[in-house]
Amino acid sequence: MKKGIGSYLVGDSFEGFVLIKESSRGLTSNGKPFLTLILRDATGEIEAKLWDVTKEDEVIFIAEQIIWITGEVNQFRGKPQMKITSIRPSQPTDGVHVSEFIEKAPVEREELMEKLTETIFEMKNPNLQRIVRAFIKKYQEAILTYPAASKNHHEYVSGLAHHIVSMLAVAKELGNLYPQINKDLLYAGIILHDLGKLKELSGVVSTSYTLEGKLLGHIPMMVEEIGHMAKELDIEGEEVLILQHMVLSHHGKKEWGSPTPPLIREAELLHFIDLIDAKMNMLNRALEKVKPGEFTGRLFAMDNRTFYKPSFEKE
Amino acid sequence: MKKGIGSYLVGDSFEGFVLIKESSRGLTSNGKPFLTLILRDATGEIEAKLWDVTKEDEVIFIAEQIIWITGEVNQFRGKPQMKITSIRPSQPTDGVHVSEFIEKAPVEREELMEKLTETIFEMKNPNLQRIVRAFIKKYQEAILTYPAASKNHHEYVSGLAHHIVSMLAVAKELGNLYPQINKDLLYAGIILHDLGKLKELSGVVSTSYTLEGKLLGHIPMMVEEIGHMAKELDIEGEEVLILQHMVLSHHGKKEWGSPTPPLIREAELLHFIDLIDAKMNMLNRALEKVKPGEFTGRLFAMDNRTFYKPSFEKE
Amino acid sequence: MKKGIGSYLVGDSFEGFVLIKESSRGLTSNGKPFLTLILRDATGEIEAKLWDVTKEDEVIFIAEQIIWITGEVNQFRGKPQMKITSIRPSQPTDGVHVSEFIEKAPVEREELMEKLTETIFEMKNPNLQRIVRAFIKKYQEAILTYPAASKNHHEYVSGLAHHIVSMLAVAKELGNLYPQINKDLLYAGIILHDLGKLKELSGVVSTSYTLEGKLLGHIPMMVEEIGHMAKELDIEGEEVLILQHMVLSHHGKKEWGSPTPPLIREAELLHFIDLIDAKMNMLNRALEKVKPGEFTGRLFAMDNRTFYKPSFEKE
Amino acid sequence: MKKGIGSYLVGDSFEGFVLIKESSRGLTSNGKPFLTLILRDATGEIEAKLWDVTKEDEVIFIAEQIIWITGEVNQFRGKPQMKITSIRPSQPTDGVHVSEFIEKAPVEREELMEKLTETIFEMKNPNLQRIVRAFIKKYQEAILTYPAASKNHHEYVSGLAHHIVSMLAVAKELGNLYPQINKDLLYAGIILHDLGKLKELSGVVSTSYTLEGKLLGHIPMMVEEIGHMAKELDIEGEEVLILQHMVLSHHGKKEWGSPTPPLIREAELLHFIDLIDAKMNMLNRALEKVKPGEFTGRLFAMDNRTFYKPSFEKE
Amino acid sequence: MKKGIGSYLVGDSFEGFVLIKESSRGLTSNGKPFLTLILRDATGEIEAKLWDVTKEDEVIFIAEQIIWITGEVNQFRGKPQMKITSIRPSQPTDGVHVSEFIEKAPVEREELMEKLTETIFEMKNPNLQRIVRAFIKKYQEAILTYPAASKNHHEYVSGLAHHIVSMLAVAKELGNLYPQINKDLLYAGIILHDLGKLKELSGVVSTSYTLEGKLLGHIPMMVEEIGHMAKELDIEGEEVLILQHMVLSHHGKKEWGSPTPPLIREAELLHFIDLIDAKMNMLNRALEKVKPGEFTGRLFAMDNRTFYKPSFEKE
Amino acid sequence: MKKGIGSYLVGDSFEGFVLIKESSRGLTSNGKPFLTLILRDATGEIEAKLWDVTKEDEVIFIAEQIIWITGEVNQFRGKPQMKITSIRPSQPTDGVHVSEFIEKAPVEREELMEKLTETIFEMKNPNLQRIVRAFIKKYQEAILTYPAASKNHHEYVSGLAHHIVSMLAVAKELGNLYPQINKDLLYAGIILHDLGKLKELSGVVSTSYTLEGKLLGHIPMMVEEIGHMAKELDIEGEEVLILQHMVLSHHGKKEWGSPTPPLIREAELLHFIDLIDAKMNMLNRALEKVKPGEFTGRLFAMDNRTFYKPSFEKE
Repeated sequence: MKKGIGSYLVGDSFEGFVLIKESSRGLTSNGKPFLTLILRDATGEIEAKLWDVTKEDEVIFIAEQIIWITGEVNQFRGKPQMKITSIRPSQPTDGVHVSEFIEKAPVEREELMEKLTETIFEMKNPNLQRIVRAFIKKYQEAILTYPAASKNHHEYVSGLAHHIVSMLAVAKELGNLYPQINKDLLYAGIILHDLGKLKELSGVVSTSYTLEGKLLGHIPMMVEEIGHMAKELDIEGEEVLILQHMVLSHHGKKEWGSPTPPLIREAELLHFIDLIDAKMNMLNRALEKVKPGEFTGRLFAMDNRTFYKPSFEKE
Repeated sequence: MKKGIGSYLVGDSFEGFVLIKESSRGLTSNGKPFLTLILRDATGEIEAKLWDVTKEDEVIFIAEQIIWITGEVNQFRGKPQMKITSIRPSQPTDGVHVSEFIEKAPVEREELMEKLTETIFEMKNPNLQRIVRAFIKKYQEAILTYPAASKNHHEYVSGLAHHIVSMLAVAKELGNLYPQINKDLLYAGIILHDLGKLKELSGVVSTSYTLEGKLLGHIPMMVEEIGHMAKELDIEGEEVLILQHMVLSHHGKKEWGSPTPPLIREAELLHFIDLIDAKMNMLNRALEKVKPGEFTGRLFAMDNRTFYKPSFEKE
Repeated sequence: MKKGIGSYLVGDSFEGFVLIKESSRGLTSNGKPFLTLILRDATGEIEAKLWDVTKEDEVIFIAEQIIWITGEVNQFRGKPQMKITSIRPSQPTDGVHVSEFIEKAPVEREELMEKLTETIFEMKNPNLQRIVRAFIKKYQEAILTYPAASKNHHEYVSGLAHHIVSMLAVAKELGNLYPQINKDLLYAGIILHDLGKLKELSGVVSTSYTLEGKLLGHIPMMVEEIGHMAKELDIEGEEVLILQHMVLSHHGKKEWGSPTPPLIREAELLHFIDLIDAKMNMLNRALEKVKPGEFTGRLFAMDNRTFYKPSFEKE
Repeated sequence: MKKGIGSYLVGDSFEGFVLIKESSRGLTSNGKPFLTLILRDATGEIEAKLWDVTKEDEVIFIAEQIIWITGEVNQFRGKPQMKITSIRPSQPTDGVHVSEFIEKAPVEREELMEKLTETIFEMKNPNLQRIVRAFIKKYQEAILTYPAASKNHHEYVSGLAHHIVSMLAVAKELGNLYPQINKDLLYAGIILHDLGKLKELSGVVSTSYTLEGKLLGHIPMMVEEIGHMAKELDIEGEEVLILQHMVLSHHGKKEWGSPTPPLIREAELLHFIDLIDAKMNMLNRALEKVKPGEFTGRLFAMDNRTFYKPSFEKE
Repeated sequence: MKKGIGSYLVGDSFEGFVLIKESSRGLTSNGKPFLTLILRDATGEIEAKLWDVTKEDEVIFIAEQIIWITGEVNQFRGKPQMKITSIRPSQPTDGVHVSEFIEKAPVEREELMEKLTETIFEMKNPNLQRIVRAFIKKYQEAILTYPAASKNHHEYVSGLAHHIVSMLAVAKELGNLYPQINKDLLYAGIILHDLGKLKELSGVVSTSYTLEGKLLGHIPMMVEEIGHMAKELDIEGEEVLILQHMVLSHHGKKEWGSPTPPLIREAELLHFIDLIDAKMNMLNRALEKVKPGEFTGRLFAMDNRTFYKPSFEKE
Repeated sequence: MKKGIGSYLVGDSFEGFVLIKESSRGLTSNGKPFLTLILRDATGEIEAKLWDVTKEDEVIFIAEQIIWITGEVNQFRGKPQMKITSIRPSQPTDGVHVSEFIEKAPVEREELMEKLTETIFEMKNPNLQRIVRAFIKKYQEAILTYPAASKNHHEYVSGLAHHIVSMLAVAKELGNLYPQINKDLLYAGIILHDLGKLKELSGVVSTSYTLEGKLLGHIPMMVEEIGHMAKELDIEGEEVLILQHMVLSHHGKKEWGSPTPPLIREAELLHFIDLIDAKMNMLNRALEKVKPGEFTGRLFAMDNRTFYKPSFEKE
């Protein structure tokens, strides 16, 4: 398998296709324009400088453009930087597609969809089942494409579905260990809890926040949408209110964005399963980059802690 | 005018109709049942003990029953207490009604309604105007009856409408002083900001929280309802989103129940006008009970502060 | 099955053996001594007054004494109170034992011990296994007897072992779902994390804090004891340090009593499994006392929240 | 009207007089000295580099010097930067004055003074009136010149008077809407509340903190000065104490610099009027720089929020 | 020496003079008036009930009246209570004085005054010395009489002087150990830091807060008074500002009442010496009431902690 | 005395030996390698650039290497930077030693050791004395060499011993002023409180945290070690527990790293003496660098405050 850009070391030469994630123009001290590019493929990203650019270059080498380059990896202020030696935009005949340059969930779309369908099939409460089924149907393509967040955890293609399916697996086992749990409720809460992100985030390639996302946030948007959906489906039981509560409270505390804290057993559990799955995703990915006996870099979304991999772990 | 129960002093005799607000049964040390009653009229409330009650008494003298009593005001553990000497439930022929025993806003319903109508008439943005008009039409009776809160401020009949109309008056003047303000937006936000309380609170006489109120809270409920209303009215402009944001953010901070803080000028202002009107309502009512040169009791909703009335104030 | 004292209602007559949990002397307004007793059996507790007591009574009817009484349940200040009509201390011939009057874990000691042994047997890392085995051997009787806390969660006989075994079951499943987890480390952390409570708490019947418990707390005490044990067993690998870290960090934050936060993946997970199991224990026990459609009382250890049992739950 | 330096875009040529706000010396990598200048006029500021400077240049081109330059606006690290092509210090014959290069309040001094005088004239309480009049007389020139703060809000010439007069207008309207308010007290509090800044801040051109300002702060300094003034004027009523309290408490909370919170109705109101006027000043100035449908930059003094200008606002 | 009322135990008989600290009227369940008295002497206080009081009794037995009683100590709700068997107000011929019934500092007034004088004599900076000397002269009687606080620490006659003198002793030693300290400044700060309490507190017998104390607090009042004093003495050096800063900052943080934190070495030290002396006073008095091996009651002003007296301490 | 590197000014020439504290490799914009060195001697440190380095240079000029250089002090981004003109590694014949280039306590090792011995000699409680003596014996060399912290206060050779001895002097005086203090306990607590740092910190030259230090921290490590030592010495009294408590609680609050707050008088005092000595060390060193009438730079470990040196201080 070809080595990804995320694993090149200082001194390596590079030749191949990459995607421009960001492009910004600068001026050197003697007034000449240059471009700072963030290049990426499915394994990671690297900064590059393109010197002495023409007006045409500035129009061509922009975000979401695929390019073919040769270059060499140097170090600049302690971080690797690609020194580009030749460059051209990709042609239709190159047969490359944006989706090849983006990180994906380690599980295939089909398998994720199958797990979702299976879970809905297991649900016995008809009101909960119908609402959940309707949302999956309405957003199927987006659920299987979107990341679960713009950064920190599950921030890759299919990340949202991967997060949901992983949480469902935990929920299934906890449901067996604590038989008082209402599994239908917990499953429904897990599947719906983050769907508001489909409207909060702009998309998959260079994920940002929508206006709606900034002014309302994914939690109130999803609470509202459950209400609309229940009306459309003519469902009226207490299940609608409880589902809205589960979405509303799943951040656990006012300070963390839930104006009401969990007041239902399954809502409390949903909050913890969400935390565990997000943390395991962050920790596993950070720890697989270090060797036994080493610390990871600081993890911003985990209170800036740095984690240790015991030296008795097998590599 | 007849003296209200809120102004009787220790040693006074009392005779007249009062409303039972709460009733609870107790046993004396020698095992005899008695009732502890909270009695109220439109001016205030007082505790009373009814000794040696029969099984029948326990069924008759319950919350929301109007009674006729004679008695005398004593003191018990530093607080006034009514010693009931005779008691009977009110008869239809007495011609008394629950509404006479409940505190009301100092402004009449008709006047409040007129001010609301007038404001809507002044609005120029058709989307905002139509949404606001639809809500006023849908909830007119409740808006003119409900309190603005279960305690602390405007906790009386028509309290909600009184709060809204009072805030509109402030908004009008600030809109003149700072001409950049979008008055339509500010008016619409003020009128809608607390309408979720119509579903959050149980009613007027002995106000408590509904199940929906506890599990969702008035803010997310109203955000959702604005969405429904806009759909029903087929309104689609950015005004809908902005109105939802104004309601969502009007508590100002996550810790205070707004998962998103104000990000629109008029939303920021709405938050402050709401604070000022609530505080002036609490302060004015607390200060009118004390003389110049005295402190009020502690005001729970104002960080437990006790306020001073300067001795150079005219009484 | 005989009805427990926890389920008697006002008006019921009572006859049988109960345990005195607390006893305190008072004086009536006319100067006569009486005793206020907290009586308990395995299902709950009730307050009782014993009037006109003699000097002898005061010596006999003290905490941890089993007594036989007849009486009647009254209500005093809104809470049930036993009116004792006859009383005598238990005799050896009565054949009753303190353990009958104390709440127990819903799982038998033997089964709990078996699960512990099984888990140790599964462990592959010899250093971790030896340390854990040595602690189980040293404290076997206490582990199977102590509560996990003096109040809030698992506060019953065998509560500590019940908590540990329940957490191990969760750990096993999470270990399967997230295969990167080092199960040996997680199991060892779970089994040891709260053993310091054996020195922090005074015992089972009327649990209080020891001097050591107050001045050091169970976390630093257990960290120290792991060090001692490793020395005794001549174990020197990094496992000792990591185990100490897991115990030290299992409260998650400085403010919650862990001077170091979790810096190992399995330590982070231990913290969350501990939280989930404690919360499920509190929630399940509180919710089984209320009917669908009702709220529980306030749960102090869960931020004073009151939880709702959906009305569509089967009773 | 000539275009101000605040509105030049990258690529524009510039010729004209500007004020040096700050000047600092640096060395290039090959050891040659250069100056980094912050240039400003009444509309804004821009950074500039002056290369290859002589010893003489370093002495001439210092803060508060007016210079004539020609240059061109480039971009450096995402921010505009003036590339100076020729430069000379201003001559007396140029007829330019520092005051032309500094931002001013949008209301004239004379009008501000008139409003202040008018308000004092309206006051009926002689003690309050005399104290306020004495302060206005003592500091008239400074009040009409100083900014209200060194940054964030009203940070321009006459900013303090502008802030006071704007607050008085709000107070007048609130006084009409809530007739219980003691207008004399509120007016006096507003006029005096920030006069301590005349001693806390160094002046108008490049505003910094005085030693007194750093070691005491404007609030305790003004409390003290009210005491001195009352002594001088031989005023002894409770008004002096109340005025001192209003100044002392106007930041609202200990954490915000008021060791005593407001305990007088008018002190509470003063705090809110101060907040509203400062926030409206910041918001209006930030929003007038963006188009409908855009967000402002982050506003540091408003919890770093970024505000949105609805797309239905007229530009 | 005669045993003080603070050391009587349940069952003891009492005969002697005591001071009424508080007196409040109540009604028994059958409507008869009684008085609840707080009685005190120089060693402590006890509650007492006086049954079947006449109108005359209510007028005689009021706060600050000295009375002669016989009685017996009982227990009521876990606290000792005096059962009065005979009572009469003191006569001039009894030769008893209020001052005998109030706790005093363990050091005599004369000795405290001497220490103050001595310290002032040691000071070399004439500005600091003159200001301090002037304050001691102005308030000499009050300084030697007032408590340092209304409760918590040094809350007894001469408590303020005792606190100052004790802090001066610590300062002297720290000044020797860290020779960089400016002793004059530290001494001046210590002597003046709490003199604002002479205006904040109402006096010695039943200490409460004055209006000035509530609305301004002792810190801003003293800052102002230092300013007045310096004017009166025609002192103008930086010492005045620094002294004001020391008083202003001596609570250490905004949240603790100092709007400016210490920014001078000696101010920082003053804050710590104040803390240490207050804490030692509280701790020593709480610990002298318990035996080795026991815990004190909860100390409110020390974060509600309860302190342990090691069992190896000599009693 | 020769001028130290800490006092060279921009423009000065330098010639002499210095120690490389840190060395890191960079690439210039045209791809040539260079080294950024942090050079230090006993008086301070300076950054330097070494251009055009060879592969050999990169191996030679590393941390902890002593070098001889000539150079000139320039300024780069506002900070002084050494421009190296010639460089060579030190030779054995140069007769220079690492210890000459590191800051040392202002008191000699012998004197520090003498003070420690003296204090132990004064202790009367045999259990406390034996434990303390054993620790001093075990760690004598390290105690006299280690810094008290990696930065902020006493961060120099013998800093730990200097800190302990300085605290003992304060303790001795406080013990005299407050005779209730148990001096033996306080002395023992002071000597042991920070010895855990000998395992937490890596050493003296370029101090960092050990793995143990990161995962446990010096406080729990020292609590454990006191337990071990007591076992080894066969000491069993309450003194062991109390000493462990003193170490455990000496940071004062959970948030500051002490899971249990001080619950012993001497533990409370230890916390304050520690604070005072650390703060005086920081303040004195910061203030000796500025002139009267100036402010220090911001002191990170003192809430980022900047301190003022009064202009009436003698220089």
